[in-house]
Amino acid sequence: MEFKPILDHQAEAPLYRQLFDQIAGQIRSGQLSRGERLPATRELAGLLGLNRTTVSAAYEMLETEGLISGQVGRGSFVTSPPSAGGRVVDWGPLLERSETSAPGFSTGLSASSISFAVSRPSRDLFPLDEFRASCAAVLARQDLADILQLGSPSGYEPLRRYLMEEARRQHVASPGDDLIITNGCQQALDLIGRVLLRPGDTVAVEDPIYTGLKNLLTGMGAQLCGVPVGPDGMDAAQLERVLERERPRFLVVTSNFQNPTGATLPLPARHAILDAARKAGVPVIENDAYGELRYRGESLPALKQLDAHGGTVLLRSFSKVSFPGLRVGWAVGPRPLLDRLRNAKEAADLHTDQLSQAVLLEFAESGRLESHRARMLRAGSERLAATMEACREFLPPGARWTRPEGGMNVWVRLPEPLDAGELLARAQREGVAYLPGRYFAVSRLDPGALRLSFAGLAPERIRTGLAILGRIVSGELESASRSFEPSPAMV
Amino acid sequence: MEFKPILDHQAEAPLYRQLFDQIAGQIRSGQLSRGERLPATRELAGLLGLNRTTVSAAYEMLETEGLISGQVGRGSFVTSPPSAGGRVVDWGPLLERSETSAPGFSTGLSASSISFAVSRPSRDLFPLDEFRASCAAVLARQDLADILQLGSPSGYEPLRRYLMEEARRQHVASPGDDLIITNGCQQALDLIGRVLLRPGDTVAVEDPIYTGLKNLLTGMGAQLCGVPVGPDGMDAAQLERVLERERPRFLVVTSNFQNPTGATLPLPARHAILDAARKAGVPVIENDAYGELRYRGESLPALKQLDAHGGTVLLRSFSKVSFPGLRVGWAVGPRPLLDRLRNAKEAADLHTDQLSQAVLLEFAESGRLESHRARMLRAGSERLAATMEACREFLPPGARWTRPEGGMNVWVRLPEPLDAGELLARAQREGVAYLPGRYFAVSRLDPGALRLSFAGLAPERIRTGLAILGRIVSGELESASRSFEPSPAMV
Repeated sequence: MEFKPILDHQAEAPLYRQLFDQIAGQIRSGQLSRGERLPATRELAGLLGLNRTTVSAAYEMLETEGLISGQVGRGSFVTSPPSAGGRVVDWGPLLERSETSAPGFSTGLSASSISFAVSRPSRDLFPLDEFRASCAAVLARQDLADILQLGSPSGYEPLRRYLMEEARRQHVASPGDDLIITNGCQQALDLIGRVLLRPGDTVAVEDPIYTGLKNLLTGMGAQLCGVPVGPDGMDAAQLERVLERERPRFLVVTSNFQNPTGATLPLPARHAILDAARKAGVPVIENDAYGELRYRGESLPALKQLDAHGGTVLLRSFSKVSFPGLRVGWAVGPRPLLDRLRNAKEAADLHTDQLSQAVLLEFAESGRLESHRARMLRAGSERLAATMEACREFLPPGARWTRPEGGMNVWVRLPEPLDAGELLARAQREGVAYLPGRYFAVSRLDPGALRLSFAGLAPERIRTGLAILGRIVSGELESASRSFEPSPAMV
Repeated sequence: MEFKPILDHQAEAPLYRQLFDQIAGQIRSGQLSRGERLPATRELAGLLGLNRTTVSAAYEMLETEGLISGQVGRGSFVTSPPSAGGRVVDWGPLLERSETSAPGFSTGLSASSISFAVSRPSRDLFPLDEFRASCAAVLARQDLADILQLGSPSGYEPLRRYLMEEARRQHVASPGDDLIITNGCQQALDLIGRVLLRPGDTVAVEDPIYTGLKNLLTGMGAQLCGVPVGPDGMDAAQLERVLERERPRFLVVTSNFQNPTGATLPLPARHAILDAARKAGVPVIENDAYGELRYRGESLPALKQLDAHGGTVLLRSFSKVSFPGLRVGWAVGPRPLLDRLRNAKEAADLHTDQLSQAVLLEFAESGRLESHRARMLRAGSERLAATMEACREFLPPGARWTRPEGGMNVWVRLPEPLDAGELLARAQREGVAYLPGRYFAVSRLDPGALRLSFAGLAPERIRTGLAILGRIVSGELESASRSFEPSPAMV
C-alpha cells in the first residue's frame, strides 16, 4: 500500500479533516481496498509530522462513517463505503412476520409508587440467609465441578430424581411418566408448543389468561380459543362445546389460583374438564405455577392425579414460591411426549442452568424451602386478607372482585361505565399501577376489569394503594353518572 | 355414599383381593362415581374388622388399575375406569410432526474410556476456588434480593452493560446496536430462528456443521443449504452462488475454530462473505462461541466489526471459556432485530437465570475470567499440540486432518475405503469414542470423516486415545486393502 496523504498546513480546513477527506476519498475510489490495514496512529503521525491526536481524530471520523473499523492492539482496517452499490439487509420486511402483540407495558412509576402490576413475590420476603446457606452447601460439595460442566437436557439428575420422587409421593406421576426440568413453567409451555403445534392450529385457553401465554401461543402462529373463566375457574360446560367444535390441538388450564383471576377449579369441575378432554381426545396441559401458595381452604387433587388416561401434563415451578430470578420449573407427563420435549429442550438451549438447579435442590432437601413456604403462606394470607378488606372498604358499590384461596392475583370488575384501561393513566399519576383487563382478554374484553397482584406488597401498602384507587374510581363513577344525567329541556 | 363391602373370611380368595374386586366393581358400574372419596384405610379397616394392611393392599391394587388416586393426608378419590368409553389421548399421531433426526448418541463407554466425543472444556480445569470467590462476592452484595427477583428479558442489567461496553471497546457494537443475554449461543440461534424463519424457508449453513444447529433449524421446518467448509472455513465463492440461487432467509457462519472442523476464516474470506451476503441482502449470523480460545496465530476482526452495513449479528458465550453448566451467552446486533429477539426471549422463558449472570459478571469484572482464560489457552495449546503430534505419529498414511489455531475440535479424514461410522463400535469396545462425520453432514457425507474433540482430555490421554484409534484404523485399512487384492485366476 502506497499511503502518503498530502496535507496543507496553511489551509483553512483543520488537519484532521484534511486527513479524513483524503483517506475517505481513497477508500471510496477503491485505491484503498477493503481489508487493508491502515498504519497505526502513532506511525502515521510520525510519517506525516503530525500530532497523534490529529490522526486519531481523523480515524475516529472514518470509523463513524463506517469506512474503517478499529481493533484494540491490532490497528484499523478498511471496511467498505456504505454508499457502494449492492443491497443492504433491510430488517423491516424480514421482521414483519414476527410482529407480536406484546403490550410493552411500562408503569412509568417512581420507586415510591404502589404497583399491583406484577405477579411476583415480594423481594422483602426472600430468605437471604437461607439462600446463602444453600449456596454455601453447594459450593462446598465434592462434585461442584460436575455442576459446572455441560449437563443433560432432562435436567440436573439429582434434582430430577428428587422431583420425580416428590411427584410419585403426591401421586401425580404414573409409572409411564417422566419428568423434565425447564426454565420455569413458561419454557415448559414453550417446549410443548414447539412439539405439538403447527401454525394455524387452535389452542383452548382460559379467557382471561395471562399475557405471557397469549403472546407465546400467538407468536407460534396458534389461534387461541378462549373458554370463559368464572369464580370457579374454566367453565367446563363451555369447554365441552369448544372442544367438540374446535378440536384444538391442546388445552391449557390452571387448576389453582389462576392468573389473572385467582380462580381455583372445584373437584367436580376438574373431573368434568378431564372427561371433556378425554372424550375429545385433546391433551390437557395443567399449569400449576401457583399451586403451592394456598392460604386457605383444602387443597384438591391435581388434574394430573385424577387423570387415569395419561392425557395430562403437569407443569410446576420453584419460581413463585421461592426466587423468580432463578428460572427452574418442571413438567411431569407421559414418556412419549417427554422424550420429544427433551429433544426440543436440547435444541432450544441445551439444558437449564445447573448452578440454580443445584442450589434449589439443596434449598428443598434441607427443609429450607418448606420453612420459607410456611412464611410465604403466612404473608400471602395477610396480604390476601388485606386486599379483600380494602376492596370492601374502598371500592364503590357495584364493583365486584374474586375471592382467591391462594396465589398472587385478584380480578376486579369496576361498575359500568368505567374503563379500567382509561383510568390507568390517572391512577399512575397518583402513584398506583395495575394491569387493565385488555392485557388478558382472549376474545371477551371486559373494559371494567383489572388485575391486582397483591403478593408483592405489604398489607399497609395494599391498603394505601386501594384507598387511592377507590377514591379515583368513585370520583370517576360520580362524574360518569353526572354526565349520564338527562339534560334539562332547552327552554 | 353407602359403602359397606361384604367379605367372606372363609373364601379362597384373599381378603384384600375380595375388597379390591368389590370396590372395583362398584366403580366400574358407576355406583361409586368419579371424585368420590374412599374412607381412609384405618377407618375402613375398623369398619370391616380387617387389618389395615389388608385395606392398604386393596387400595394399592385399585390405584395400580387407575381406578382410584390417593393423595397424602387427604385419602383416596375415585378416578374413573380406564375401560370406559370415549377417546383417550393418543400421543403417537400428535407427536408425528415433531420427529427429529436427533442422533441419540450414546458412547456406551465406561468412565475410564477416552472420549473425543464432546466439545467441552475439561472439568479438571475449572477454577473452583475462583468460582467460589465469585459466588461469595455476589452473595455478600447489598442487592442480592434484586438478583433473586424476576428480571428483564434483555438480561441482568449490570451484566448487559458490562458486555455492551466490552463490545464497544472491541468495535463489534455500532451505535445502532443493542445486546441481549441468552442461555448460551444455542438459545440466541433459537430466538433468531423464531423471529426470522417461516416453515419451508432456507437457511445457509456450513457443511459440515454441528448437530445442535442442524437439529434446531430442521426442527423449525427450515431447509438447510450447506456451503462447503474447507481448511479455511466456509467457501466464499460457493456461498455467493448459493445465496444467488437459494435466497436463504439468513446465513449462519462461524468465524473462528468452527465446530466440527476447527477452521478459521482468513480476513479476505471474511470480506468476501460479507460482500456476498450484502449483495444478496441476506443477514449474517456470526456464531463465535469459540473465538476467545485462540492458541496460536493472530486474532482477526469479527465479521460484525468488518460489516459497515448493519447486516450482521454476533453471538458469543461464556460457556466454552468458563463453565458450560452455567448457560449465559449474548447477541449483539441491529436494534430492530434485537427488539424482536427480546419479545421472543420473554415468550420463551421470561429471562436468563440471574444468579449465573451475576456470578459470571463478578468472575469477569474481578479479572478472574481473564486469568482463567490464560490458563485455558495454555492447556488448550498443549492439548492441540498433543493432538497434532499424535495424529502425525499414529494415523496411517493417507489420513488427513485440519490444523486449527484454537477451539476444541479437529476434523480427521480417514483414508478410503474406511468408514468412520463403522469403525466406531470397535473403537468404543477398545475404550475410545469420537463422533463420525454423519452427525455433522448437511448434504455432503464423507464416510471417512470424524470429529476429535480434544479440549476435554489431558495430553497423555489424547496420546493414548489416538494410539488406540491409529492401531484400529491401520488394522482395518490393512484388511480392507487385502480384501481388494485381485484374486488369483481359477485354474
